[in-house]
Amino acid sequence: MIKTFNSSDIDQLEKIYRINLINAITGFKSVNLIGTKSADSKPNVAVFSSVIHMGSNPPLLGFVMRPLPHKRDTYPNLKSTGHYTINHVTTDIYQQAHQTSAKYEKGISEFEECGLTEEYLNGFDAPFVKECSIKIGLSYVEEYAIKANNTILVIGKVEHLIVPENIIEDSGHLNIHEANSLTLSGLDTYFKTEKLGRMAYAAKPKTS
Amino acid sequence: MIKTFNSSDIDQLEKIYRINLINAITGFKSVNLIGTKSADSKPNVAVFSSVIHMGSNPPLLGFVMRPLPHKRDTYPNLKSTGHYTINHVTTDIYQQAHQTSAKYEKGISEFEECGLTEEYLNGFDAPFVKECSIKIGLSYVEEYAIKANNTILVIGKVEHLIVPENIIEDSGHLNIHEANSLTLSGLDTYFKTEKLGRMAYAAKPKTS
Repeated sequence: MIKTFNSSDIDQLEKIYRINLINAITGFKSVNLIGTKSADSKPNVAVFSSVIHMGSNPPLLGFVMRPLPHKRDTYPNLKSTGHYTINHVTTDIYQQAHQTSAKYEKGISEFEECGLTEEYLNGFDAPFVKECSIKIGLSYVEEYAIKANNTILVIGKVEHLIVPENIIEDSGHLNIHEANSLTLSGLDTYFKTEKLGRMAYAAKPKTS
Repeated sequence: MIKTFNSSDIDQLEKIYRINLINAITGFKSVNLIGTKSADSKPNVAVFSSVIHMGSNPPLLGFVMRPLPHKRDTYPNLKSTGHYTINHVTTDIYQQAHQTSAKYEKGISEFEECGLTEEYLNGFDAPFVKECSIKIGLSYVEEYAIKANNTILVIGKVEHLIVPENIIEDSGHLNIHEANSLTLSGLDTYFKTEKLGRMAYAAKPKTS
């Protein structure tokens, strides 16, 4: 049986039901920890499921923040220092990662509260997450205030990319599943992955 | 062993290597077919890995388009009709879905060329993909021209959501893995998923 929701059905859904449903309809999401440090050097880390690829030349990533002041420290920190890190959530730490979404007070270190370890690499001032195997250091580039719902799209440039050497193929392909990177459905359901296949570059069939 | 790329290392990578590498670093992606129809009723469908959740109230989804005129038909079509569909790529059709990324001429129907079936539901004028089990009809809301790399973020509102009834939980959670929805790494590597766990809402621990 097929269930259809139209726009007015969705408007009338109970709030938590709607949040669960609509958060799942885009498909599987990336799941990353974003690490920052305040101007007075207090570290912060928070889980995000909205990190996306914006382009590879220059190497730009985006992520969407809920309306302020929801993730209380990430935004002011990255604005004041200009730097942040994105770290893949893995099998070993997804429970700790999820716990960072709790509403801790401003200035509290979720690293400490959630059992994750800050790590400083290559002279970069924002904290990486030591437990993660794929780590990216970014500089803030620009942001867009989304009128439709007061969210913010933040765009950053990759300054440092730190990955296990054995998951990089000669082609540049990165076997993130071998680094135990996970994917998320909705807000709370974590998945491992199993490779189905790699497709060749799709060429246009010769005209018959 | 750990491999580190800094910003200047990335700039110097061979083009295809850089595309493969940078496309994989955000983590797993959603993989969807976007269906549109031109003002003169020619259908179009193209695979996108950039569909993201923007918010659940109102229900808004975003996707990023490469600089124009790359996906030649999707953008002019959705601008002229105001409507488009987003359909989850599944195990059964990922090869056909990938083939839609080939550079077909303007006005050619990738439905026909790639072995996918257009379907019209609920009086909505943009084509759904019959083979997909999760289908979303959207109306165009707004767009943002991204200065950093000339991409476009398109935002739409969910007007119709069509899902198998048996994957909806009483909580509104949607078991998209049971509908065989896939996830993508990079540009070309497709993955099935295996559920690891659902986490409870993260509460702040009681002050000790």
